Amino acid sequence: MDKNSLRELLEQVREGKTDVASALQRLKSLPFEDLGFAKIDTHRDLRRGFPEVIFCKGKTVEQVVSIFEVLSGTERRVMATKATPEMYEAIRWKCPDAVYIDTAQIVLIGRPSEKKTDRRVAVVSAGTSDISVAEEAAVTTEMMGCPVDRLYDVGVAGIHRLLHNKEKLFEANVLVVVAGMEGALASVVGGMVDRPVVAVPTSVGYGASFQGLAALLSMLNSCAPGVAVMNIDNGFGAGYFAAIVNLGKND
Amino acid sequence: MDKNSLRELLEQVREGKTDVASALQRLKSLPFEDLGFAKIDTHRDLRRGFPEVIFCKGKTVEQVVSIFEVLSGTERRVMATKATPEMYEAIRWKCPDAVYIDTAQIVLIGRPSEKKTDRRVAVVSAGTSDISVAEEAAVTTEMMGCPVDRLYDVGVAGIHRLLHNKEKLFEANVLVVVAGMEGALASVVGGMVDRPVVAVPTSVGYGASFQGLAALLSMLNSCAPGVAVMNIDNGFGAGYFAAIVNLGKND
Amino acid sequence: MDKNSLRELLEQVREGKTDVASALQRLKSLPFEDLGFAKIDTHRDLRRGFPEVIFCKGKTVEQVVSIFEVLSGTERRVMATKATPEMYEAIRWKCPDAVYIDTAQIVLIGRPSEKKTDRRVAVVSAGTSDISVAEEAAVTTEMMGCPVDRLYDVGVAGIHRLLHNKEKLFEANVLVVVAGMEGALASVVGGMVDRPVVAVPTSVGYGASFQGLAALLSMLNSCAPGVAVMNIDNGFGAGYFAAIVNLGKND
Amino acid sequence: MDKNSLRELLEQVREGKTDVASALQRLKSLPFEDLGFAKIDTHRDLRRGFPEVIFCKGKTVEQVVSIFEVLSGTERRVMATKATPEMYEAIRWKCPDAVYIDTAQIVLIGRPSEKKTDRRVAVVSAGTSDISVAEEAAVTTEMMGCPVDRLYDVGVAGIHRLLHNKEKLFEANVLVVVAGMEGALASVVGGMVDRPVVAVPTSVGYGASFQGLAALLSMLNSCAPGVAVMNIDNGFGAGYFAAIVNLGKND
Amino acid sequence: MDKNSLRELLEQVREGKTDVASALQRLKSLPFEDLGFAKIDTHRDLRRGFPEVIFCKGKTVEQVVSIFEVLSGTERRVMATKATPEMYEAIRWKCPDAVYIDTAQIVLIGRPSEKKTDRRVAVVSAGTSDISVAEEAAVTTEMMGCPVDRLYDVGVAGIHRLLHNKEKLFEANVLVVVAGMEGALASVVGGMVDRPVVAVPTSVGYGASFQGLAALLSMLNSCAPGVAVMNIDNGFGAGYFAAIVNLGKND
Amino acid sequence: MDKNSLRELLEQVREGKTDVASALQRLKSLPFEDLGFAKIDTHRDLRRGFPEVIFCKGKTVEQVVSIFEVLSGTERRVMATKATPEMYEAIRWKCPDAVYIDTAQIVLIGRPSEKKTDRRVAVVSAGTSDISVAEEAAVTTEMMGCPVDRLYDVGVAGIHRLLHNKEKLFEANVLVVVAGMEGALASVVGGMVDRPVVAVPTSVGYGASFQGLAALLSMLNSCAPGVAVMNIDNGFGAGYFAAIVNLGKND
Amino acid sequence: MDKNSLRELLEQVREGKTDVASALQRLKSLPFEDLGFAKIDTHRDLRRGFPEVIFCKGKTVEQVVSIFEVLSGTERRVMATKATPEMYEAIRWKCPDAVYIDTAQIVLIGRPSEKKTDRRVAVVSAGTSDISVAEEAAVTTEMMGCPVDRLYDVGVAGIHRLLHNKEKLFEANVLVVVAGMEGALASVVGGMVDRPVVAVPTSVGYGASFQGLAALLSMLNSCAPGVAVMNIDNGFGAGYFAAIVNLGKND
Amino acid sequence: MDKNSLRELLEQVREGKTDVASALQRLKSLPFEDLGFAKIDTHRDLRRGFPEVIFCKGKTVEQVVSIFEVLSGTERRVMATKATPEMYEAIRWKCPDAVYIDTAQIVLIGRPSEKKTDRRVAVVSAGTSDISVAEEAAVTTEMMGCPVDRLYDVGVAGIHRLLHNKEKLFEANVLVVVAGMEGALASVVGGMVDRPVVAVPTSVGYGASFQGLAALLSMLNSCAPGVAVMNIDNGFGAGYFAAIVNLGKND
Repeated sequence: MDKNSLRELLEQVREGKTDVASALQRLKSLPFEDLGFAKIDTHRDLRRGFPEVIFCKGKTVEQVVSIFEVLSGTERRVMATKATPEMYEAIRWKCPDAVYIDTAQIVLIGRPSEKKTDRRVAVVSAGTSDISVAEEAAVTTEMMGCPVDRLYDVGVAGIHRLLHNKEKLFEANVLVVVAGMEGALASVVGGMVDRPVVAVPTSVGYGASFQGLAALLSMLNSCAPGVAVMNIDNGFGAGYFAAIVNLGKND
Repeated sequence: MDKNSLRELLEQVREGKTDVASALQRLKSLPFEDLGFAKIDTHRDLRRGFPEVIFCKGKTVEQVVSIFEVLSGTERRVMATKATPEMYEAIRWKCPDAVYIDTAQIVLIGRPSEKKTDRRVAVVSAGTSDISVAEEAAVTTEMMGCPVDRLYDVGVAGIHRLLHNKEKLFEANVLVVVAGMEGALASVVGGMVDRPVVAVPTSVGYGASFQGLAALLSMLNSCAPGVAVMNIDNGFGAGYFAAIVNLGKND
Repeated sequence: MDKNSLRELLEQVREGKTDVASALQRLKSLPFEDLGFAKIDTHRDLRRGFPEVIFCKGKTVEQVVSIFEVLSGTERRVMATKATPEMYEAIRWKCPDAVYIDTAQIVLIGRPSEKKTDRRVAVVSAGTSDISVAEEAAVTTEMMGCPVDRLYDVGVAGIHRLLHNKEKLFEANVLVVVAGMEGALASVVGGMVDRPVVAVPTSVGYGASFQGLAALLSMLNSCAPGVAVMNIDNGFGAGYFAAIVNLGKND
Repeated sequence: MDKNSLRELLEQVREGKTDVASALQRLKSLPFEDLGFAKIDTHRDLRRGFPEVIFCKGKTVEQVVSIFEVLSGTERRVMATKATPEMYEAIRWKCPDAVYIDTAQIVLIGRPSEKKTDRRVAVVSAGTSDISVAEEAAVTTEMMGCPVDRLYDVGVAGIHRLLHNKEKLFEANVLVVVAGMEGALASVVGGMVDRPVVAVPTSVGYGASFQGLAALLSMLNSCAPGVAVMNIDNGFGAGYFAAIVNLGKND
Repeated sequence: MDKNSLRELLEQVREGKTDVASALQRLKSLPFEDLGFAKIDTHRDLRRGFPEVIFCKGKTVEQVVSIFEVLSGTERRVMATKATPEMYEAIRWKCPDAVYIDTAQIVLIGRPSEKKTDRRVAVVSAGTSDISVAEEAAVTTEMMGCPVDRLYDVGVAGIHRLLHNKEKLFEANVLVVVAGMEGALASVVGGMVDRPVVAVPTSVGYGASFQGLAALLSMLNSCAPGVAVMNIDNGFGAGYFAAIVNLGKND
Repeated sequence: MDKNSLRELLEQVREGKTDVASALQRLKSLPFEDLGFAKIDTHRDLRRGFPEVIFCKGKTVEQVVSIFEVLSGTERRVMATKATPEMYEAIRWKCPDAVYIDTAQIVLIGRPSEKKTDRRVAVVSAGTSDISVAEEAAVTTEMMGCPVDRLYDVGVAGIHRLLHNKEKLFEANVLVVVAGMEGALASVVGGMVDRPVVAVPTSVGYGASFQGLAALLSMLNSCAPGVAVMNIDNGFGAGYFAAIVNLGKND
Repeated sequence: MDKNSLRELLEQVREGKTDVASALQRLKSLPFEDLGFAKIDTHRDLRRGFPEVIFCKGKTVEQVVSIFEVLSGTERRVMATKATPEMYEAIRWKCPDAVYIDTAQIVLIGRPSEKKTDRRVAVVSAGTSDISVAEEAAVTTEMMGCPVDRLYDVGVAGIHRLLHNKEKLFEANVLVVVAGMEGALASVVGGMVDRPVVAVPTSVGYGASFQGLAALLSMLNSCAPGVAVMNIDNGFGAGYFAAIVNLGKND
Repeated sequence: MDKNSLRELLEQVREGKTDVASALQRLKSLPFEDLGFAKIDTHRDLRRGFPEVIFCKGKTVEQVVSIFEVLSGTERRVMATKATPEMYEAIRWKCPDAVYIDTAQIVLIGRPSEKKTDRRVAVVSAGTSDISVAEEAAVTTEMMGCPVDRLYDVGVAGIHRLLHNKEKLFEANVLVVVAGMEGALASVVGGMVDRPVVAVPTSVGYGASFQGLAALLSMLNSCAPGVAVMNIDNGFGAGYFAAIVNLGKND
């Protein structure tokens, strides 16, 4: 109930077109709509441009298919992250339009938003094993209407590969850096650019990586300013964060 | 050595004005100047608008004073974070222009940048003990030319106080959320707004807060998308990150 | 051996109906029966109204079936928590009366207690993945004779959904709050009500949730007073605790 | 703004006594007052019976004195927990009425609530070093109008002392169990009684107690049902929780 | 090379029966044999009374069978701990004499030592899930010639069961206490007896038991003196330790 | 109330010298005395041979002096562990008989037990910094009437020193091994002897020793059987445990 | 582009054989080749003597086969570590020349380097379960042209076995020590030799070994100088590190 | 007793110059000297070139002075690490020759070894706060006769400073890399050079650096091969390790 509706209601009361009890009832029954939560509007907005998202990890194939099917009945676009090929096979049986972006482990119905900005997001990743998280971020950002540059396999063990691509780093408005093991890439990129770096530790590694803890702590302690950190393997979160930074408040 | 200088050097070689050995020497001795690191230019840029920063924690009063004095001889603006009153007293003896922003634990020489944008950064904090970290963030952001709205003492234990201030939350282009103990405020704010939330866990708490670990983990696991996390107590880092997000690439 | 039996024994000694040696033997052989442990009586009491409980996790299907079968031979009511559908299938083969409450992962023989109080317990949960733990709590509380209000999927990422249900929160005499990831819901609910909140962290999450550690620490550090915490995923414990609080000492 | 005020406002609009713009303004400017947060009323209620509470740990003597002085100007009763003798000396200088309960490390202005119930809370502690946390809980519960039985120094290393006091355990409506080191007392008490046990781990111990972590984990994993856990050393929280359980919803 | 052989060698040198080079060679080639390691003799000794032990966890069925087969060719007695039924089936195919003690998860060839002492070892365990570790300890102790009293399912959640058995506790010369979850049983038993308690934490539990960490820390911090701790689930180690304590130096 | 008193009471009832009500009262009021806790007798026993023990760490000088003074009024022997020189100075003022064993950080009134056995306890320590914990163990064991051999500064970094002393190792009936840093000495000694090894990790070390955690984990995972572990720095506990093992059940 | 090519290019410019634009283009298009990264040359060098390495853990059979096949098309030698027999079977189907060193879990195409030094590397391991990591190190070192002495199953639980082999320890120029459980072997070896010890903790163990953490901490805290530590189970890394130490800078 | 002395002894026996009893006595009383421990010779060797080392952290000024004084009476060279200025002042009072290298926190008597090799060790450090650990390593290495190149303040936040110094990196035979916070420098340097990198995490940092844990884990998980890790802040260990690698077996 926005300000205009509220004014209208009050005027109807004043003019006697609505009695007090009815007005009271309407006011009481809508206690939160008038809070004007930005998020609610956002949701409405996003529903036009952004798919509903299902986080598949820890769910059974049956659960994923069931949620996907329900959403695909009401939404123009549905997105499932961390989806296995088996999940996709099961989904496709029910939703033949669904496509599988296997590099990103994403099942998708619907097309990306039209491009909403020329500012670019760079998605940078360290090793080949980090690519699926990086792609999850990249695809998410693209779905939200942002152009993405991918710089993969540029880990610090061979820093010349990273330096070779410095132009793309410098052109980006926002950077997502995805790295497992020791996660040093976030600090190195953060030390080269002057734009926000969204760092995503991955669970890639073994032994004292403790399922991504080493990379997580490394990124939180980055000696380069301008680095903020997401949860381990949270490619979707990084892509979403980078997109809202890149789009700005009024895009 | 930019492209023009390089061309000039080659032309000098061609014209015999520079011999091969000298040219070789110059090329060899300047291998990185032509990398055009954005950060280098940035640094130069920032030096006009942003103070040099000294992190005082873990340093002795003598060390802080000594670094401060050196920098104040060459820089227009110097900033020391996590500075104690004792440090300020000692600095003031050498640098009478220095001022102490005790709420932010910052010692400062020089004035903030002129305002560079109308977009606003909201700095939100949970408890009274979190205010010094929040102020560190707020002062940093202001020093970089961004308008800041402060919303302090709006922790989730009394969520009506936060809801009372929702307009300021919705107006912000970027939000910094500072909270210790369980750090729930980041999720609640992240669930209300559709703009980037920079979450700063603080070491405020006791027992199972484990010096900020509880708040850190809480923020990393935020169920609300759009939340990225800084190191514990890193108010400066959050303020810097929020400012570069807010200023955008060409501001 | 209660007070009356003891008096009777002594009287028999006085009257010469029991000789000293026999009395001594009886007193010696029953050194603990006269401790009058409340729990023993409670157990006896509960057996009339509350099922025997089997914790299935970490047990094989064979072990669960075997324990269940034995108990169902002597008890009117048997309850198995964290039971998989496979376990239920195997149990049903032996105990055809057993029913499966799949949302709560509970296998059950026997009906709930009659309602023992009008005071209500609210069971509140954050995400859809938390529902099985919440249901485990809710069913346990109901089995003990308490009316339960369920408020599911009211996580802080969309706080308006929680606020919409504030009446139910305010009506409850005790609240069970079930949440994974960052567990912020416990603090938010704890900040809204003035009744005891029993917080249950769940292992829902990934990466830095560390199998529920993030939610556990978050809840232990709740900035709202009136929040006490159970072990991770311990829905049964929370339901039991809430019920004994709700029933009061003499119910 | 309660329902009656709202009806009155609408009637004033209907009757033309208030114009639409003014009504709109009032409705808009008070968007949260009508949420009827129980806590707000509670707070108001408590202010008559319960002191404002200051957590002194991590605050300087100056900060504690300053907050205490401000509160004592407006509140009938003020309570400061984890207060050192030095803090008390400094407070007394400003607030001569303040008294120091040194066993509980509490500074207090004002008297306890009158007794609000006959149901008893038992506060049980393991070692002599745990007594200050236990007293913090006991004094808090008493301040809220509940009768308290103290059972101190009944740790499991000499379980006969605990068994000697079983009547007091069995009489209690709620029990607070305070223990450091391995925290086993909570399980033992939880196994003897059928009423809620609020377990408080303390940081008493050394080496592998890891500042209370051992006791905390021990209590969270209690094999006895009916045990819920507070943060390490959180005597105030346990006392508050026990009191609201003991008072019940309408006391 | 013992003292007599050494003397003999020197005499041979003196008498010219052995030349210096040969003597030098013998002295050099046997540098450690004369260290007289007690363990070596022990090993020899034990081989007459104690089986060779294979730790099966983390080994494949093939590896276990292969080691078992080799040892059974040279040793009178072979023992495999943490053995699954599958392992036993595979072993029996090769070694038809092997028997499986399924409660202890032990595969065995050969009979226990004759009884070597009348002093008794009590093996006490908390829950039904702890029994396999307790049996592993009990069988190991029996294999080494010590009489064992078993007290199972006497966890502190029902402390009357433990107290019922106090005579057996008081008769024991050494006690092994096996408990998972919060491990409180070790402290309670340690507080009742004045003989050494060997505490074995088990990985039984869930959530914040962290695979036995809670019980481990609990036992290390036991407030009762006379408690020493083994690794998590190390029933064999506890049985071995208890046996060597019980047998004494010259048994 | 022992068996004889109980018989006497029953006979008085039979003979009419005591009425049933009085007998009932006596039986009821003495519910635990007849439990015959071994520990109680032990305590009485120990009081003749073993001092009362005060753990000084975490207590103020005033607290220690006060407890010491009280005990010295009723006990023949009092022992305070982890006592600083300052504490001793303060104690001596009140109790002039107290002596300070500075190497063990123990303050003592009274003399050791007469020798109760010829079996020897070896106390072995790794580095010079571990000696105070080792001495705490050694003095405790001696106070309980056991002969002690000290082998200090025989850490594995120079294993020849340990091997030089192998006779003393082989002669011991029980061994206490005290080591910080990586704690490897426990495994090496455990591999050499066939008697029980009581391992005490110390907090000696820095960085990744994490205040003794590295040594603790090392000792718990000892590859040598026959090693049981005490809490970090718990020299008293190790000395006590070694003594009760060494004295045997009937010494 | 090495120094000679660069000189040649400049001379061509000087002599007019190359115009400035072309030279500029060449210089610009090769911005990093002239950095002269030692590693690049090394890589080129190693490609002649050292296989490409694939880390198989965490990869599917399909991924491993696919990478292996691609590399075997371009490289003379390919090595895959942590390879299962299944992986080998799948690889062999595509690359019939591949051999499987099952003790080291390595799949290999191509032969070791010729011997490049007479200095020896000793690879020492504690238990039989550590052998696969030790062999991974040993094979890696041999592939790089270094002679290796293997000393397996010489854990500290039977230190005489280690002492028996002291000559091999003393002869080595570098030592790799592989141990799980408590990892004490690294300290013992480090205390015996005066050459560098490369310590590799393994995940062998259970309970409080926490997947190798105990051994890792133990090795990091070694009381013997001259010990440096690799990640848990990182046999390849240790073999590589030992080889480059052993070969020296100019081998 | 080396081989020659042993031969001589045997010849004396053969020639009757020494009787068997005496020879036996000598052999028996020197059981370990003939083990030929390399370390013993090394120690002797080092004593000519390397100072005795005292680790001051955790020791009182009195303890340090006392050990220092004793050693300076028998050794030509004594070195104390982690020494505070106060310690130096106290040492100088007793040992006027002692000098203080304050950047390395080292107190020293005696001069470095003469240069023993031309191969160079590079000591590289990230931040200004890491310099004291780096200097501890550098001074140690120099004391052992190795030339050292220092590259300080070349952290990855400004990677151009590191790249500027690549010649020194490439020239080094061994590299010590010292870094706190996220420790990324070790990976970056390890990725640039093909020589061994000895990585030293420092406790520099705050919050989620957890006193050096973040840097430690980061370095253990380095994606660059050729990196081995020392304990946190262990500059001496790194310098010692680098020196023995650099000197080689026969230097």
